[in-house]
Amino acid sequence: MVVLAGPSGVGKGTIVAELVRRDPTIWCSVSATTRAPRPGERDGIDYWFMTRADFENVRDDGGFLEWFSVFGDLKGTPRGPVEEHLAAGRDVLLEIDVQGALAVKEASPGAVLIFIQPPSQAALEARLVGRGSDDPAQVARRLAGAAAEEALAPQFDAVVVNEDLEPTVERVEAILSNSRQTPREHDG
Amino acid sequence: MVVLAGPSGVGKGTIVAELVRRDPTIWCSVSATTRAPRPGERDGIDYWFMTRADFENVRDDGGFLEWFSVFGDLKGTPRGPVEEHLAAGRDVLLEIDVQGALAVKEASPGAVLIFIQPPSQAALEARLVGRGSDDPAQVARRLAGAAAEEALAPQFDAVVVNEDLEPTVERVEAILSNSRQTPREHDG
Repeated sequence: MVVLAGPSGVGKGTIVAELVRRDPTIWCSVSATTRAPRPGERDGIDYWFMTRADFENVRDDGGFLEWFSVFGDLKGTPRGPVEEHLAAGRDVLLEIDVQGALAVKEASPGAVLIFIQPPSQAALEARLVGRGSDDPAQVARRLAGAAAEEALAPQFDAVVVNEDLEPTVERVEAILSNSRQTPREHDG
Repeated sequence: MVVLAGPSGVGKGTIVAELVRRDPTIWCSVSATTRAPRPGERDGIDYWFMTRADFENVRDDGGFLEWFSVFGDLKGTPRGPVEEHLAAGRDVLLEIDVQGALAVKEASPGAVLIFIQPPSQAALEARLVGRGSDDPAQVARRLAGAAAEEALAPQFDAVVVNEDLEPTVERVEAILSNSRQTPREHDG
């Protein structure tokens, strides 16, 4: 299992899309959330949309690899599908946030954590401004968040600087392939 | 204007309640959110509950000192009430998250930012476990978040270690009082 994390705007979504385009056998986890679907979002593709009661039941049964709450909404990574795909020998990819990645590592020490880093603070700022969805206050907030997350990069198994898509994807592919070849530990 | 921020579980809410109990003339900002109210939550006291369309209109008019989106919900600090209370000579207190505090400073350089720090990682973990609202995965995630936010503490004007409530509140009161006495800059 490989976990991709990094600051907002670093290009994780593009990297994941390219990885799956090159190797459609890679399986990407879909997060569950209690928030309402937005127009165009599809259940099971963008998110698994759940009621709060259902989410809490699944959570209390240990059904999430990691979960968290913000503003009273809940979001998490369903454990079942991840374990089923791992058992079937598939490459499993999680694209989650930095804190979530560390929570996954705590629960599943075998997970390989990749921190996707922007080439520079200035490059990240340019990308955030360029995508046009944030005003200056939100950009300032995201940059502060990125600086904070950066402090957690040393806890990751690998750091990949996303300068250009092609070499970044190749580096992640190499890590995925390497995680596959690692001999399993003895069970006892 | 004084901004209190720090990791989840550090005791910000208790500090704010004690500050206001001691000096009821302190005015605390109430955040706006697009999420639905939960049972018992009161509009204008716990949050200002807004529709997404209203929030976006206010935001696009520059009506938030800082705002952010998570899971598609929006949250922000309404600018108007803060400026009115400042103009009326009141002490204004914002209790927000660490990234939000830095965004406020960017927009209002005169704001005094206080980072509330736990005495240790172990003390924060004990507090998070003790309040019983998080399972181990969520505690791991919050600790990772706290470690990340810690990296931003040097950008704050003051760091107060919340070992015991009384000295912490006195320290914040002293900073509040000091921020009041600071002579205003010339306007030109």
